[in-house]
Amino acid sequence: MDPHHPFDAAIRLEEQSEGHWRGHTHEAYGNMVGPFGGATAATALAAVLAHPARQGEPIALTVNYAGPVAQGPFDVEAVAVRTNRSTQHWSVQMRQGAEVVATATAVLATRRDTWSAVEAGFPQAPPADAVPRTPPLDRVRWTRAYDMRFVQGPLQMATPPAAEQDSVSLLWVRDEPPRALDFCSLAALCDVFFPRIFVKRANWVPIGTVSFTVYFHADGATLAAMGSQHLLAHARAQQFRNGYFDQSAELWGPGGELLAVTHQIVYYKQ
Amino acid sequence: MDPHHPFDAAIRLEEQSEGHWRGHTHEAYGNMVGPFGGATAATALAAVLAHPARQGEPIALTVNYAGPVAQGPFDVEAVAVRTNRSTQHWSVQMRQGAEVVATATAVLATRRDTWSAVEAGFPQAPPADAVPRTPPLDRVRWTRAYDMRFVQGPLQMATPPAAEQDSVSLLWVRDEPPRALDFCSLAALCDVFFPRIFVKRANWVPIGTVSFTVYFHADGATLAAMGSQHLLAHARAQQFRNGYFDQSAELWGPGGELLAVTHQIVYYKQ
Repeated sequence: MDPHHPFDAAIRLEEQSEGHWRGHTHEAYGNMVGPFGGATAATALAAVLAHPARQGEPIALTVNYAGPVAQGPFDVEAVAVRTNRSTQHWSVQMRQGAEVVATATAVLATRRDTWSAVEAGFPQAPPADAVPRTPPLDRVRWTRAYDMRFVQGPLQMATPPAAEQDSVSLLWVRDEPPRALDFCSLAALCDVFFPRIFVKRANWVPIGTVSFTVYFHADGATLAAMGSQHLLAHARAQQFRNGYFDQSAELWGPGGELLAVTHQIVYYKQ
Repeated sequence: MDPHHPFDAAIRLEEQSEGHWRGHTHEAYGNMVGPFGGATAATALAAVLAHPARQGEPIALTVNYAGPVAQGPFDVEAVAVRTNRSTQHWSVQMRQGAEVVATATAVLATRRDTWSAVEAGFPQAPPADAVPRTPPLDRVRWTRAYDMRFVQGPLQMATPPAAEQDSVSLLWVRDEPPRALDFCSLAALCDVFFPRIFVKRANWVPIGTVSFTVYFHADGATLAAMGSQHLLAHARAQQFRNGYFDQSAELWGPGGELLAVTHQIVYYKQ
């Protein structure tokens, strides 16, 4: 949390009554239409974390993008639907006027130290400072809010490949300007990947994420210890079929800590 | 839909008023405590699909298991929170008495034929009829409701491995008795995997799925064309950490059709 950082301004919520907040989209996180979906997801999570009844830290977050979010104010309502001894389940709705623009569910939990093991492999990549920053995209304002350094699978709109390629991207990424990592910024970073169809086909088509899930594998202390270092982010699609493709990705700390895994399904027009 | 099949009995809902149903757990899908989570997920989806306002076919389903489901009756409420031209967003709550036992969100859509591509690899496996059926587990009633034929990564409780192994399982699976595939049975099949921690450590510990997501890659006609053939199911964990592990899996038709991808995060006690 850094009151002077644009990310904190983008997810800032003003309490209207218990469980009801008012927020406002922020131009620094503007997308081609409406705000960056990662900012919307982070705002839904921010409402849960700000609630006085909140207990524990995020384990799972699912956000469904129900319709376009207009630039401007929005209302967020967060309800604790069930509180157990070590877990808590939340439902969130985001509205503009009478229209629901997003729904979310979140599971919080109190973690304990247990036997642990990582099975996914930390991807091989040169260190972040050995990879040049990829320039942001002029037409997509939110890309200026991240420092992205692609190792594999960048957008290649200028020089489309001769043939379809795989949809894998590997990049170092952090907030720009730098900001200490926390649950909300990690949730937003989980949506930082360009649509896999752009990587696979190097062809700009209308797209929109319809459902987005993050599983958090780290506690708040682990995230805080990351500071503002780059994370190593690795994404791929499994199938593009009749208007929808899925994407799975992992976000790693630079020391090989698997901080989050994330999945989404995305509409595309063809 | 087969009125004489126990799966259809397990997900049967009686309408109380528009959007409100009453269901009842079914002994054939009993788990060690309460019902099989796949049956709960399928029931939440069944409520959406039975709603008179329903429009389109499932694209995404997320179910959050908020607390234990007792054997007996339960109430389901499904609300269409937003209907667009080609997509529809649903929120579902399942209650027993005053307690919320599960929440769910679903996205439905009308699909169009588009450019399509599968990027995940169809796993190598001998055909289903060349693999013997793995006996169900006496203490887990729902395992009798599926014909499972493990190619890799079965439960090995009787002969625990000397060392930790990877958590990958590959199996052929179908409803037992056979039943034509549809969205509800596919949702349940997506939860058919034993907890990855049992595969990795061959050590029975208390576990419980907290959040479960299915992305459907097939339309209803494609599912119907599968009939009651075995599907090839491939699952793995990425990390076990401080009480929670994640699991990702794919379900394939025997001809190499990627029908669904599914993810979950699971509590474990150590």
